[in-house]
Amino acid sequence: MNSNELFKNIQKKKSFLCIGLDSDVHKIPSHLQDSGDPVYEFNKGIISATHPYAVAYKPNIAFYESQGAKGWETLDKTLRFIRETDPELFVIADAKRGDIGNTSRMYAKTFFDQMDFDAVTVAPYMGRDSVQPFLEYPGKWIIVLALTSNIGADDFQFLREKGSGKRLFEIVLEKSAAWASPDQIMFVAGATRADMLADIRRYIPDHFLLVPGIGAQGGSLQEVCHYGINQKCGLLVNSSRGIIFADGSQNYALRAAEKAREIQEQMADVLDQNRLI
Amino acid sequence: MNSNELFKNIQKKKSFLCIGLDSDVHKIPSHLQDSGDPVYEFNKGIISATHPYAVAYKPNIAFYESQGAKGWETLDKTLRFIRETDPELFVIADAKRGDIGNTSRMYAKTFFDQMDFDAVTVAPYMGRDSVQPFLEYPGKWIIVLALTSNIGADDFQFLREKGSGKRLFEIVLEKSAAWASPDQIMFVAGATRADMLADIRRYIPDHFLLVPGIGAQGGSLQEVCHYGINQKCGLLVNSSRGIIFADGSQNYALRAAEKAREIQEQMADVLDQNRLI
Repeated sequence: MNSNELFKNIQKKKSFLCIGLDSDVHKIPSHLQDSGDPVYEFNKGIISATHPYAVAYKPNIAFYESQGAKGWETLDKTLRFIRETDPELFVIADAKRGDIGNTSRMYAKTFFDQMDFDAVTVAPYMGRDSVQPFLEYPGKWIIVLALTSNIGADDFQFLREKGSGKRLFEIVLEKSAAWASPDQIMFVAGATRADMLADIRRYIPDHFLLVPGIGAQGGSLQEVCHYGINQKCGLLVNSSRGIIFADGSQNYALRAAEKAREIQEQMADVLDQNRLI
Repeated sequence: MNSNELFKNIQKKKSFLCIGLDSDVHKIPSHLQDSGDPVYEFNKGIISATHPYAVAYKPNIAFYESQGAKGWETLDKTLRFIRETDPELFVIADAKRGDIGNTSRMYAKTFFDQMDFDAVTVAPYMGRDSVQPFLEYPGKWIIVLALTSNIGADDFQFLREKGSGKRLFEIVLEKSAAWASPDQIMFVAGATRADMLADIRRYIPDHFLLVPGIGAQGGSLQEVCHYGINQKCGLLVNSSRGIIFADGSQNYALRAAEKAREIQEQMADVLDQNRLI
């Protein structure tokens, strides 16, 4: 999928919502716990109910990996269920990978060849050759961590470079944007620092941003859009816990759909105000 | 395991060799390909033949993950085989993980609870709260990427901070060394930049370093020891491909043992010269 196709899907669904499948087996409703694969049953319910309001899903790999071999089967089945439900959905493996070339090649194979994800989140610390193998798959994306939504972002991401005065996250944006076209690279930019999105847009006016931190982490959708939207929308705004764990009862899927629709309606307004639909 | 116990094992085996199990299914000898689990058979051969010469093993998670659910079973069985072979071996999950707190908690659970690794490699970009959950397991370690052995290390790790003039990898060392005692944290420092180990030792004289890049990546053991050794040795020097793929025939395990013994003998000399044994 390229950025034009992604934008078309955003226009069609009037939504730039990404739903994070942080499907913690200990948090899913009790009535699902006796099924053969509780997390898969939970995900099916969530995806079936919410897909009209979302353009993307983002399974958080940690939650599957923590279940061992079985968790990887759940992940694989979940991805296939998303594809069957709507082949135009953009699916992100939130894996934060990055290693020397021969190792990253294996990670790329895992997510783009063994499984059919559209994108993988990657950490920038090891530099260009650590993400290059992911870019060898046409139509597939990397999503580079630039400015994250957690407290620890302050530890290194705001460090200022001698000479240029630029902050580390700005240098990451500037350098890594040159590694691929805006059809293969997007950036993580946390919603908990929405005003920073204006600084980020100075470096990458045209790229898509994956924005976590809406909902449970406290970020504001209005602010994110104010500072971050561009002529192709350029935003995938993620919500995980705020949608998938909105209700812990048998009604979980219905309630998740309500939450997703609430956000989608706000997004439709934003797209309309910005004359993007 | 704490740093004193690790040092005792180093003295006992006269070795600070870590063997990287980057067990690529496409590179293992053809006679193993017909077995039910070729990578596990390969690893068993390598571990059985090399364990007298090594104090640590480091499965590279990417190579297991790329085999899907089956790969995770292979990883789990390999770890258990290492424990049965010699319970004093230090076993590192080379995973380069790091994410927001609730996600890192899941990764910690995977490697320290579901499986019984001693240490996990982590990426520093997201800061303290992204590695904190790993430190909640007593006796378990994080190994923080500081200076890596690949070309891409130049992209961000050498960036100098305005004011202090320190390089990013130095700031990572300085800050993250305060997150835990030298009994729970070590650092990755690439052997391809051995002279940099002197700079690294200024920040962390007492910590263990995991040093990749010996062998296939071109680093020199002598230089690494010259600049990096401390009063408890303080080094785990890794070799992966140079040992495990030294021979592609039925003799692969024997040849791997020869290669490991060669390195161990050099290490024994170094330990002796430094009066550590």
